Amino acid sequence: MGHDMLMVGVDGGGTGTRAVLITPGGRCLGYGVAGRGNPISAGVAPAAAAVLTAVRSAMASAGCRLSDVSVIVAAQAGQPASGEGTESLRDLLRSAGFGGTVRFESDLLATYFSGTADDSGYAVVSGTGACAIRVVGGRIDAAADGLGWLLGDRGSGFWIGQRVAKAAIRDLDGAGPATALTRDLLEHLGIAPEASRGGGRPPSLEQLVGVLYGKPPIELASFAPLAFRSAEDPVASGILRRAGEHLADSLAAVLAGPGPLVVGGGVLFRPGPVREAFVRRLGDAAADLDLRAVEDGVVGAGLLALRTGGHPVTTETLDRLADAVARVR
Amino acid sequence: MGHDMLMVGVDGGGTGTRAVLITPGGRCLGYGVAGRGNPISAGVAPAAAAVLTAVRSAMASAGCRLSDVSVIVAAQAGQPASGEGTESLRDLLRSAGFGGTVRFESDLLATYFSGTADDSGYAVVSGTGACAIRVVGGRIDAAADGLGWLLGDRGSGFWIGQRVAKAAIRDLDGAGPATALTRDLLEHLGIAPEASRGGGRPPSLEQLVGVLYGKPPIELASFAPLAFRSAEDPVASGILRRAGEHLADSLAAVLAGPGPLVVGGGVLFRPGPVREAFVRRLGDAAADLDLRAVEDGVVGAGLLALRTGGHPVTTETLDRLADAVARVR
Repeated sequence: MGHDMLMVGVDGGGTGTRAVLITPGGRCLGYGVAGRGNPISAGVAPAAAAVLTAVRSAMASAGCRLSDVSVIVAAQAGQPASGEGTESLRDLLRSAGFGGTVRFESDLLATYFSGTADDSGYAVVSGTGACAIRVVGGRIDAAADGLGWLLGDRGSGFWIGQRVAKAAIRDLDGAGPATALTRDLLEHLGIAPEASRGGGRPPSLEQLVGVLYGKPPIELASFAPLAFRSAEDPVASGILRRAGEHLADSLAAVLAGPGPLVVGGGVLFRPGPVREAFVRRLGDAAADLDLRAVEDGVVGAGLLALRTGGHPVTTETLDRLADAVARVR
Repeated sequence: MGHDMLMVGVDGGGTGTRAVLITPGGRCLGYGVAGRGNPISAGVAPAAAAVLTAVRSAMASAGCRLSDVSVIVAAQAGQPASGEGTESLRDLLRSAGFGGTVRFESDLLATYFSGTADDSGYAVVSGTGACAIRVVGGRIDAAADGLGWLLGDRGSGFWIGQRVAKAAIRDLDGAGPATALTRDLLEHLGIAPEASRGGGRPPSLEQLVGVLYGKPPIELASFAPLAFRSAEDPVASGILRRAGEHLADSLAAVLAGPGPLVVGGGVLFRPGPVREAFVRRLGDAAADLDLRAVEDGVVGAGLLALRTGGHPVTTETLDRLADAVARVR
């Protein structure tokens, strides 16, 4: 088999970038990782550099070079199919010695194909943002939400993190119920809590508000893990339950019959209160959906690379690639 | 009466600045206006310049000079009692020839004293932001909300405007009910609506989301009037009702017995759905509160200037000053 037939799938996300090097038969030859690969949050040049680093790291682990590769599929959050970011990455790959085909795909579609080889079905992805898609004939046919932190992304990591911050603030302000999230958030930010409550606003409230407005709003997403960690707290569990319901509602907006349902992103990956509320809210519709949780879109980016190269993709291809990636992670 | 005993009260807000020139007896000699006077949203230097412009305009209408004034009270939204913004304004007034006392007061307290001369009571202010205060002995004794657009300000102009945008987006995305707000918002922003809905996302949705993320988040507050204009629309009226309920809940958090209740800011000033829901939500507590709506804090800033100058302030002083300002507005 000639090296010129190798393919690379890349999944570039807001927290990290992953690349997989595969043969036309779907065998995994190498795996590599790098930093943040979302051109909106990381910046165009750093995101492109992260993709190249992940690709090179995958090649190095297999002892191959970029000139051995015929197809690179880049699935990056925040990367449209054309524009400044795509040109920047094309130029970088070309100057690094890559002469083959570069194809840009939706990170949502890559997440979808990380969980199924079926041409048609659904995916709900909740990481920093949140979106539901319907896939028909291997392409995105409909989408719900994915409208960003200020206007949508209901049930996302940002949505949960913002509610964690608001719950702590309302607790300190005396306007909401006491919650373990208050102590956790203050500790997380290194703010000393008051020993006892006197009259007026506690200094920790003023300090907390000052610290939070000093950060870019999107960083509220980093507080989402506090809700998962205190899931037995009534306020935290209420936030997680509502997140699951919102994600189910987004899926319901694109549902049109049975199919595989791939759930991806940190919020839905692990079984727990969000996933439970999500399935409960779907009700009878859940019975027609074959739910599979995936960690990210790197396996799907590999499958999209195979499709781009004109190679057959079956459930066996998917399972073999997913197993290989799980072993090297 | 010597000119050196004149006083000025200034109310600097996010959309405009107002100044009133008064005698120790509370007689209004002049009134002036200028541009945005909130140092956070307008910038420190432009806000200070707006205060000076409003003060000079009030002096000019009375044929007086800054050297004739002994006290200036500046009540500016977004201005703490000390810090960069206060020093900037002090320097500006000094270099313009003012040699008297400059005192900084909360804009919330100025709004309170625009509606009552009583030392103790309550105010709920909902403009771009939203806050409830309890006043005891002429000072703010407790506050609820006022925590800014990202974390609080429930029931504010921003809160309403953000929900207007979200409602239109959910309508266009097929995830929420049809609402007149969609047509109004698209028209307001000069975006052409689709003649009919085909499959996939309507181009107007992508365009709307792009336009909204291109503005500073706080500008969502400018959509609040669309909800008031379409108050017969079920989605719009639901937003306005919830706003009124949130404002009542903020007040409830600081309520401690009967008293005057001053409601201020654009959201609560005019009778309508927000005010009705606000009073309904207060329930029995409303009977113990003497509600007065005020347009802004300029009259109260005048009263605070009188108090700062050591002059008596009575209900008659307030009524006379409020009448005079109402005539010259």
